[in-house]
Amino acid sequence: MLRTSALALAMLSASASAASTLPKNVIFFIGDGMGPAYTTAYRYYQADSEVGQVTPTVFDRLMLGSASTFPHDDTVVTDSAASATALATGVKSYNGAIGVDEHKQPLDSMLVEAKRLGWQTGIVSTSQVNHATPASFVAHAELRSQYDVIAEQYYSRRLQENQPLVDVILGGGQRYFPMQHDGLGQSMVAWGYQYTDSLAQLDSLTRTPAMGLFADKGLEYAIDSEHPHRLSAMVSTALRLFEGSKQPFFMLVEGSEIDWCGHGNDIACAMKEMDDFAKALEVAEAYAKRHGDTLVVFTADHSTGGLTLGSNGEYQWDAKVVKQVSASLPTIQKAILNQPAAEMAKTLTRYVEFAFTEPELARLASVNQDKEALYWALSEIISDRSYTGWTTSGHDAIDVPVGAMGPQSQRFVGHHDNIDLSKQLTEIIQAQR
Amino acid sequence: MLRTSALALAMLSASASAASTLPKNVIFFIGDGMGPAYTTAYRYYQADSEVGQVTPTVFDRLMLGSASTFPHDDTVVTDSAASATALATGVKSYNGAIGVDEHKQPLDSMLVEAKRLGWQTGIVSTSQVNHATPASFVAHAELRSQYDVIAEQYYSRRLQENQPLVDVILGGGQRYFPMQHDGLGQSMVAWGYQYTDSLAQLDSLTRTPAMGLFADKGLEYAIDSEHPHRLSAMVSTALRLFEGSKQPFFMLVEGSEIDWCGHGNDIACAMKEMDDFAKALEVAEAYAKRHGDTLVVFTADHSTGGLTLGSNGEYQWDAKVVKQVSASLPTIQKAILNQPAAEMAKTLTRYVEFAFTEPELARLASVNQDKEALYWALSEIISDRSYTGWTTSGHDAIDVPVGAMGPQSQRFVGHHDNIDLSKQLTEIIQAQR
Ligand SMILES: [Zn+2]
Ligand SMILES: [Zn+2]
Repeated sequence: MLRTSALALAMLSASASAASTLPKNVIFFIGDGMGPAYTTAYRYYQADSEVGQVTPTVFDRLMLGSASTFPHDDTVVTDSAASATALATGVKSYNGAIGVDEHKQPLDSMLVEAKRLGWQTGIVSTSQVNHATPASFVAHAELRSQYDVIAEQYYSRRLQENQPLVDVILGGGQRYFPMQHDGLGQSMVAWGYQYTDSLAQLDSLTRTPAMGLFADKGLEYAIDSEHPHRLSAMVSTALRLFEGSKQPFFMLVEGSEIDWCGHGNDIACAMKEMDDFAKALEVAEAYAKRHGDTLVVFTADHSTGGLTLGSNGEYQWDAKVVKQVSASLPTIQKAILNQPAAEMAKTLTRYVEFAFTEPELARLASVNQDKEALYWALSEIISDRSYTGWTTSGHDAIDVPVGAMGPQSQRFVGHHDNIDLSKQLTEIIQAQR
Repeated sequence: MLRTSALALAMLSASASAASTLPKNVIFFIGDGMGPAYTTAYRYYQADSEVGQVTPTVFDRLMLGSASTFPHDDTVVTDSAASATALATGVKSYNGAIGVDEHKQPLDSMLVEAKRLGWQTGIVSTSQVNHATPASFVAHAELRSQYDVIAEQYYSRRLQENQPLVDVILGGGQRYFPMQHDGLGQSMVAWGYQYTDSLAQLDSLTRTPAMGLFADKGLEYAIDSEHPHRLSAMVSTALRLFEGSKQPFFMLVEGSEIDWCGHGNDIACAMKEMDDFAKALEVAEAYAKRHGDTLVVFTADHSTGGLTLGSNGEYQWDAKVVKQVSASLPTIQKAILNQPAAEMAKTLTRYVEFAFTEPELARLASVNQDKEALYWALSEIISDRSYTGWTTSGHDAIDVPVGAMGPQSQRFVGHHDNIDLSKQLTEIIQAQR
């Protein structure tokens, strides 16, 4: 007899009953740009430093498979709009599309479907809430850059006169929801949204509909922020707002800025965004464990930056170096731009714990009057020291991780195309009808 | 009611009966260096060229999760010896270790355990059969470079006087098994091994024990070979040899040279190795479907080269370019080394279907008297044209894919550390006791 077969059978019978059980609530986490190099790196980044001691992450605990992300376009590399449209609506579209198909016809998302069935709905992101990924769950636009067209639909799109489409909106984007007279944000508050613009005052939101916008566009990077766990705080708030209701809820949570740090080939920035995303997923994991009625699914829309963990022939990836950097590259760049060499060296000690070598300092001094060149010199030095590899400032085509827990999570085992993840989730939502 | 819940329940009840069923046979596939970028790239490489038309691969069909690969060493990047030791024995060791622990004490592999229980055993690889990965399933050595020490154990290590440890040995490595008087190979033939040195004569092997060695060291790269599907041919042969017996069999199959092409940052070479590995896995998949009594598991020992699919800011990975290259970089390099520019351009047309630009030709001409520089110029040109990214000539730390089918395959769902894959397989083998 197998030592573990009793356990395997018990798990299987648990999952057999789970297979016929439907979740009350669905929470969909998207790590923007979070390819497998990010989930792997994060494990080693947060691990004990002792040889051979590695703690599994929440991604490891929930892991069930992978997803392909190619768009309906003449490339296999997607942008965040096409992949968000695929994940939100189950239809592949062209790069740039927000909730519209290849013929620019509107597509309804699983959030819209949930609202149609009387669920509460939420959108939580670290970017402006009308950025590509959340936008594809709420709006239609031919181009992702139509931020005002998109924002306006957060308010105007209704399935019923007296019902907002999105009950909880938390993230960035104050500029797209102006609070002055006749501004979009002001109209929403007048209509009935509770509102705060301060992460410190998330507690002031006490009922739905509620909106919190905490930055002009995207939130400050976690690594630069006084609130490095602002995504997990927003997710906790949303769950608190939903919890009082007997209605089921659907919530989209995006770790938006993992992707932005990836575009900037900024590994320390990316790891802090991963940490906030992981903590937010852990909040949902704890909620799902406590309630037993909530399906939590995570994936990524694509991988960003061609991130790898190993460079220049060395068999090494050094998380210690990454942990020694305490600001984003844009912050460091801004601080040392145009500084005389000696002053620059001193300034760097405020942001970086390791001592730069003389050649590194000379290199930085030689370019620190050129903003762009300075940025990439900083990125290269930190990447080389930590053996972090990057191959692009754009996206790559590598399959992304998929994980889930709770009722119906067994559907997410194996490899999926991104539209199939969407179809499964929509089917689960519709099944409650 | 869910549209697919009947199917889901049927699948689950099938897997419930599978959970209590033990496999008769176990086949373990290791794609050396095959990180997620390789399985992703292969899908697009073998896909139809029509927009949005992508066929799932055998890796997609079997996919169930991922594995971490860090060694017991002061780095999270493993070499093939430490990871093979982990996969073969369930114990993490230092980089370079072949079937020994951190204290250099010998460890028994799942192959040894299977033989102890009376199973037939096989080792099939495209490298020399005593290379790191297969070696860790058969031998003990403090260093992977001790090829002769390792080879000798393929013959001398016996659990019973009249029983070889490995019943089927197929791959490369003639130089380590000399056939002249008193050579190791000659001793094995005298002892009773059937032997061939020709891939064209695989049919001449009709019973176990059998050995086929088809190259001095590793087999010729698939892309350069008259037998581009030599791994799948060897796997078919091994299955034919095992099939006659009532005994169960354990077989290790390694796609060894995926890693070698990865070290060389040679994407066309890597894709042809992936194609042979996929075909070999399909042979096992068909066998397992036909017999229903065979567990097939695939994974990789680590990822190689920091391969990514996207470079230089472009949202593209172009498999067409990769398919237009019909030889390995070492073959092309050798052909054009020291050639006058005009002749070189002509030679290139034999190996590459696309037309090199004038600047590309000028670049190659400027370095083609320097073997090393010429190699990397070729790699860069083909990588840039296809938007293939590489960050190292060594390995990287990114988690690798895991897939399985057949009885007990449900154990491989989710994220695993590499030693846990090994423990699961060993437990499944021991359960037949
Ligand atoms: Zn992006
Ligand atoms: Zn290697």
